[in-house]
Amino acid sequence: MSEPVERTIRVQRIYDGQVVGLRVEEVELPSGRRTIREIVEHRGAVGIVPVTQHGDVLLVRQYRKAVDQWLVEIPAGTIEPGEEIEACLERELAEEVGVRAGRYKKLVTFFPSPGFLTEVLHIYLAMDLTPHVVDREEEELQVIQVPLAQAKEMVHRGEIKDAKSIIGILLAADLVGA
Amino acid sequence: MSEPVERTIRVQRIYDGQVVGLRVEEVELPSGRRTIREIVEHRGAVGIVPVTQHGDVLLVRQYRKAVDQWLVEIPAGTIEPGEEIEACLERELAEEVGVRAGRYKKLVTFFPSPGFLTEVLHIYLAMDLTPHVVDREEEELQVIQVPLAQAKEMVHRGEIKDAKSIIGILLAADLVGA
Repeated sequence: MSEPVERTIRVQRIYDGQVVGLRVEEVELPSGRRTIREIVEHRGAVGIVPVTQHGDVLLVRQYRKAVDQWLVEIPAGTIEPGEEIEACLERELAEEVGVRAGRYKKLVTFFPSPGFLTEVLHIYLAMDLTPHVVDREEEELQVIQVPLAQAKEMVHRGEIKDAKSIIGILLAADLVGA
Repeated sequence: MSEPVERTIRVQRIYDGQVVGLRVEEVELPSGRRTIREIVEHRGAVGIVPVTQHGDVLLVRQYRKAVDQWLVEIPAGTIEPGEEIEACLERELAEEVGVRAGRYKKLVTFFPSPGFLTEVLHIYLAMDLTPHVVDREEEELQVIQVPLAQAKEMVHRGEIKDAKSIIGILLAADLVGA
């Protein structure tokens, strides 16, 4: 598209970390006015809605320091440098909920907070699950198994508060009719 | 809840900006192992799904520098320091799509990326809309009006890629039956 965009005048690097980077850009708007954009960099992640043959979804419950709460989420994880998406899906499914999927279906790709965050999330439905237990990297991660329709109710009641999990569960429920 | 959490050992402040802050915490896990948490701070935002009496939803199309794309989103904005949520809803509706709402209904509160980001988003359905044009702060913001059912189709086709907009549209469609 040849639509007007914001032209970068100057970039200041603030931080390069394990999970995020931060840069501040001075940009010129199409009107000619200049402003500042604080941009948080993240290398992207996958989220997986694993649904059993009985229509249950496997969720994980974990403490999240950034929001100081225990949250119920779909299995997910950051894409390692150079890692293919399918390899990341398989790794996270095995590590977090101890299964392997025979079949994946892409549900959506979305931006969690595009006003300042580069992170992109790829959400997949995972089916034909078989047990596949590996050493779990994560500490204090509890697996929860509930019918998909009940997970959707948990979204409507505000009990599932994580964007990728809300989106994954609502789209999976639309697709399989929960 | 008295469940085990991550105890903060040390905090290093990295950045304090207009939109985000950044701190790095050394934490002790319940197992005793220590690790690092990079935490991006954001003061929270509202998103609004404005639905007309004919069942259309008002959306905005804007360029987002962080992801270098033009995105279709629901009207939204950051909560100013000390601002009440209802005042923020009214301000953003007027500034971004030129309407006032007679009635609001809370749809959900969610975390866009709770693994590292403190941001919380409050999503509201807005009804009984009347024109209320004010000076628009935003540059290059285009208003789009589509039936709610069509907006839901745009989510399913991957044409709406922003978390708050996907969540707001799917929940509003569930509620009003689009």
